[in-house]
Parts: sequence; C-alpha cells; structure tokens
Amino acid sequence: MPKSQVFSIPALKRMPAYLRELRNLQRAGRPQATSPILAQALRIDAISVRKDLEMIGAIGSPGIGYAVEPLIDKIENFLGWKNASEAFLVGTGHLGTALLGFRGFEDYGLKIIAAFDKGPIPAGTTVHDVPLFDFSEFRHLAGRLQIHMGILCVPDDAAQEVAEQMVDAGIIAIWNFTAHTLQLPENIIRQKVNLAGDFAVLSVRLAARLRELEVVKEETV
Amino acid sequence: MPKSQVFSIPALKRMPAYLRELRNLQRAGRPQATSPILAQALRIDAISVRKDLEMIGAIGSPGIGYAVEPLIDKIENFLGWKNASEAFLVGTGHLGTALLGFRGFEDYGLKIIAAFDKGPIPAGTTVHDVPLFDFSEFRHLAGRLQIHMGILCVPDDAAQEVAEQMVDAGIIAIWNFTAHTLQLPENIIRQKVNLAGDFAVLSVRLAARLRELEVVKEETV
Repeated sequence: MPKSQVFSIPALKRMPAYLRELRNLQRAGRPQATSPILAQALRIDAISVRKDLEMIGAIGSPGIGYAVEPLIDKIENFLGWKNASEAFLVGTGHLGTALLGFRGFEDYGLKIIAAFDKGPIPAGTTVHDVPLFDFSEFRHLAGRLQIHMGILCVPDDAAQEVAEQMVDAGIIAIWNFTAHTLQLPENIIRQKVNLAGDFAVLSVRLAARLRELEVVKEETV
Repeated sequence: MPKSQVFSIPALKRMPAYLRELRNLQRAGRPQATSPILAQALRIDAISVRKDLEMIGAIGSPGIGYAVEPLIDKIENFLGWKNASEAFLVGTGHLGTALLGFRGFEDYGLKIIAAFDKGPIPAGTTVHDVPLFDFSEFRHLAGRLQIHMGILCVPDDAAQEVAEQMVDAGIIAIWNFTAHTLQLPENIIRQKVNLAGDFAVLSVRLAARLRELEVVKEETV
C-alpha cells in the first residue's frame, strides 16, 4: 500500500460490514463471494463493491467473485485488526466507564490497556478490569508501552488541554468522544463521536415531527 | 417555531456546548453572556454564535449580550430537554448494555425506560436497572406508553428487520448504533453512530502514519 494513497472514507467505513458478511459466508461453508452477493448484504451496488475491494488490492474473478478466506485476511490486515490496536483512555466519567465496559471493541481489535483520570488514584484501582492511573503518569506509560492511540472522554471544557498533553506524550490518533472540536497540529489523526450533539439533532427533529402530527390530528378531529 | 423551519445541523450540534458554557457562567454568578465569550468557548467566531442563537429565537442586546438564565431555558426548551425524552432500546449485547449503563444520557434528558431482546426473558429481568422485555412485547408497550424514539443496538444483520418492526409499532425517530444503513420510509428520523466504522477509519490512518514515520526513521538512521 503506497503511503501516499488516499482512501475513500465511506469505503473505509464499509470494511467492517464486508468483514461481517464474509464471516457469515465462511460460517455457512461458502468458499466464494460474488460482488452482487456482497452488494445485497451492504445495500449498495455491485460496482461500488468492486471499487471498494479494489481499493485494498482485492480483484475478483469474473463470474466467480472473491475467495472468502483470503479476502477476510486482506481486510483484517488492511484495517490492522489482526494485531490488536492498543489504546489509552482518558476520563472515567459516565461515558469513559461505559466504553471501558464495552466488550465489543475487542471484536475489532481495539484493546484499551489503561485508563487515566485526575489523581490521587489508589494503586491497583481498575475500571471494568482495566487498570486506572493518575493522568500525570500518562506520558511515562505511553512512551514505555509505545501507545499511539488515545480515547478522549473527559468533560468538554477539559478536552483541549488534555488532548494537547496526550499529543505531547506521543499520541498520534485521538478518538474524541467530547463535544469539543480539538485544535491540534494537522498531522494528528482525529475521529469524533458527539453523542450529545447527535441526540440534540434527533430530539429537535422528533419534536418538530410530533408537532406536525399534532396539527394533522387537530385538523382531522 | 414554524413547523416548516429548517435548522442548520452544525448549529443544532453546537447547542449542547452552548448549554454547557452557559451553565458554567451561571455557576460563576455571571448574569450576561456576550457572543465573543461564547465564541471563544466554542472556538467559532462571534458572528456564527449570533446566527446560531438567532435560529432558536434568541437575540442579544448590543454591547450587553444575552441574559444567561433565559437563554439556558430557551435552549433547553428548543431541544426538548426540559421534559425528558423517553426511549426504548432494542438489543442488549455489548453496546446496548453499555448504553443502558451510561448515566450521562440523563444530563440531556434522555430516559431509556425499557430494553428489549429476543425472548424468552424471565419476568423482572433488568439491565442496569432498566427493565428488559421480550421484543414481541415492543409494539404493545410502545403504544401504551406512547414511545416515539428507539435506540437500535441489535447485530448488524438484524438491524433492518428490527427497525421495520419498530416503525410498525409507532417509532418515528431511530438512533441507529449498528453499521447498517437503514432503508425506511422518508418520514422516519434517523441518526447513525457507527463505532466500528469510525474505528476502521482511525486505525487505517494511524497505521499509514506509523509506516510514514518508520520510513522517516529509517532514512535518518
């Protein structure tokens, strides 16, 4: 994979769905997957499937499709999910604690090996079996364990400062679960999940729809 | 608020951040908030702040800004967060269970009042204190309790079928935590959180960056 290559984000986001479908086929004892079969499972068209898979270097045979097992390998390697990605999580409030308890991360090779919060934290403290440390130890541990990915779950108003300290400690990729848009050097990789923001959109739209329905109801009574 | 009004999604997503900042000011005993102060907290410009707040009908006084308490009220009312939104959650695997345990939802007025999964489920079963029912009871309970919002956490390959049944039962808004893009009638409100997809993007980018750094390191040795 040439380092200058640019990947399509929607295609990247579909990779876990391809994996799921291919594993289903594997379990069903099917050695081959055609692009129409994958297309149907993902509810996209077969041309998009072929483009997505070409992006990671997989070319199907005309009329036969893709060999299931090698394609699973290829996608897992592409995503780096064969070797678990290790990450540190910072902020063990409601959301951080929920994420530490979320076993599903392991399905996609993410292993949270330590969590951090403001001290003092008694030695031996764990949250859902993940060891918890004082954030002052973050830099030392990230360096020693060669951790490059951080999951940020601190209160919004602490997000910027904590993220800067994570970057100083060698973190290159931040999964940001705060509502704050981080201002960081260009070369820091970021992915944001804004649950409160998403929920705001959903609730405003629902409230508007319910008012519309109410109007319709009044008019028909 | 006229029912035909269209809201800016980025502005909607900023509303929780305004609320947070206004509550901070309130706690600090500050009765007024100027647009530059809010702009700084949200790291956007003051003109955007004024536009965002105008969208919900709040107009600041020149040189004085906005009265903090009425503005908090206005945003909370706009978001419908004053009266908790009640929702049903379907699918109590890893993610569904984590969400049921996430106390932070209550901060933004979301109350998950029941969870559902495939039966048989013994009477009195709860997950993080939320009562769990057989999905076959969904329609009956949604109608009786007038629930319009559903949180979807089932396995990806069940997402479409379960979502259709939720819609049949009167659900109008679906917060979709599966990787599956739902095919539903236009008038059903949807918000998607694809954690596996987001993580795929993050890990591929991190892997590419680490390869680049490796190349640089080899070249400088």
